Amino acid sequence: MGHDGQPLGKAWLVGCGPGSLDHLTLKAVRLIRAADVIMYDDLGAEAAVKEFAPETAERVYVGKRGGQKSIVQTEINDLLVTYCRQGKQVVRLKGGCPSVFSRCSGELHALAAAGFPAELVPGVSSALAAPLFAGFPLTDAQLGRSFAVTSGHQPEATDWAAFAQIDTLVVLMAGKNLDVLMRLLQTAGWDFDRPVAVVRAAGQPDQEIWKGTVSTIAEQTEGAGPLSPCVLIIGSVVSLSGEPS
Amino acid sequence: MGHDGQPLGKAWLVGCGPGSLDHLTLKAVRLIRAADVIMYDDLGAEAAVKEFAPETAERVYVGKRGGQKSIVQTEINDLLVTYCRQGKQVVRLKGGCPSVFSRCSGELHALAAAGFPAELVPGVSSALAAPLFAGFPLTDAQLGRSFAVTSGHQPEATDWAAFAQIDTLVVLMAGKNLDVLMRLLQTAGWDFDRPVAVVRAAGQPDQEIWKGTVSTIAEQTEGAGPLSPCVLIIGSVVSLSGEPS
Repeated sequence: MGHDGQPLGKAWLVGCGPGSLDHLTLKAVRLIRAADVIMYDDLGAEAAVKEFAPETAERVYVGKRGGQKSIVQTEINDLLVTYCRQGKQVVRLKGGCPSVFSRCSGELHALAAAGFPAELVPGVSSALAAPLFAGFPLTDAQLGRSFAVTSGHQPEATDWAAFAQIDTLVVLMAGKNLDVLMRLLQTAGWDFDRPVAVVRAAGQPDQEIWKGTVSTIAEQTEGAGPLSPCVLIIGSVVSLSGEPS
Repeated sequence: MGHDGQPLGKAWLVGCGPGSLDHLTLKAVRLIRAADVIMYDDLGAEAAVKEFAPETAERVYVGKRGGQKSIVQTEINDLLVTYCRQGKQVVRLKGGCPSVFSRCSGELHALAAAGFPAELVPGVSSALAAPLFAGFPLTDAQLGRSFAVTSGHQPEATDWAAFAQIDTLVVLMAGKNLDVLMRLLQTAGWDFDRPVAVVRAAGQPDQEIWKGTVSTIAEQTEGAGPLSPCVLIIGSVVSLSGEPS
């Protein structure tokens, strides 16, 4: 209870995994069931809300819906604080895991600045799950002793040579710029024959997978429609999938 | 059904997250509940088996118990195949996520070679969860646009300079060699003042967290007892935790 007898607000920033309810954690389910307010922006999160949110919970969609203008991050931060001020238990549901490109640090900062507790709750990240859906792990004792994860949102602003010594590279949000990205990798000295896998809509019913190399994958996926959401995996571990040699 | 009327065996290689039941996914729970055989080696996995395995399920511990000789990986591979030959639905439970240092490629290969289907089921990895438990995400629009994950098992055999251009580095299995590792990073030219967090027993009741820098963390954790299991995070994102500045 706060000084004035109001319950104290708190926010949980919760990952709900890639796409389907299958990958929701027991803790995420428990938190959704107990929430006063649920703020969500992801399609997978929406399914979780429909399945587990109590009827009494306020449901606040803060994402981008085709064509409409998206709510900006500072508005989301403000909303979190506003609900906490009302003494609410607020669950902020995010696709994947809050650790990976979830923009949660702004939300954490806003909550801390206003004096409200926040808890980060991990989820299954598509960066780790997509390769499993495609039949291979990100690491292997021989072929992959390390991996890196980055965003392909602005491929020209990224120093791709910095990743060249890492066995496996995962690029999220790479779908729109796949051809540019592959050309940049080649320019940065990457082996043209390094295996590449593209997983579109990882974990969702319409999941689709392509396998090729740095030099072939852009052409292979040409005409496949928008590659979004998409996880790109580059490295020898890609060759672990499929039949044994 | 197989040719001889036997049900066809199948194996699921399933991640059960870091330590507690909280981070188990709904799919993992469903698979454990339906299993004929459950092979596990992890403490978190053991808790999941106790909670969700049917009484009829055969429970096979394949891990290392203090002092005893551990079963070798090839024996685990053989066991998986043996149970599948008996037409069993086999759940192979692993701590964390099968994508990250789970040795699942050998198991996959053995199953494929014997003609049995295998499915990889993601879990919450401590590599992504431990930073959240310590109060910060692995990525941030300003401080962390990429991260890498590797093992600290053999620090002298690792080229640490290869990771120097990545914003955030996560090292698993680094506890036993923390002082050696920090000296190697300094030798490889890493900034002595780069923030470091050490999370011991991530997600478990006895979780413990230290924060320091590349030059201070070894001394800070000296005398804390064995740092195992332990997740090490190096990078500016560590400074996102705690009170706002």
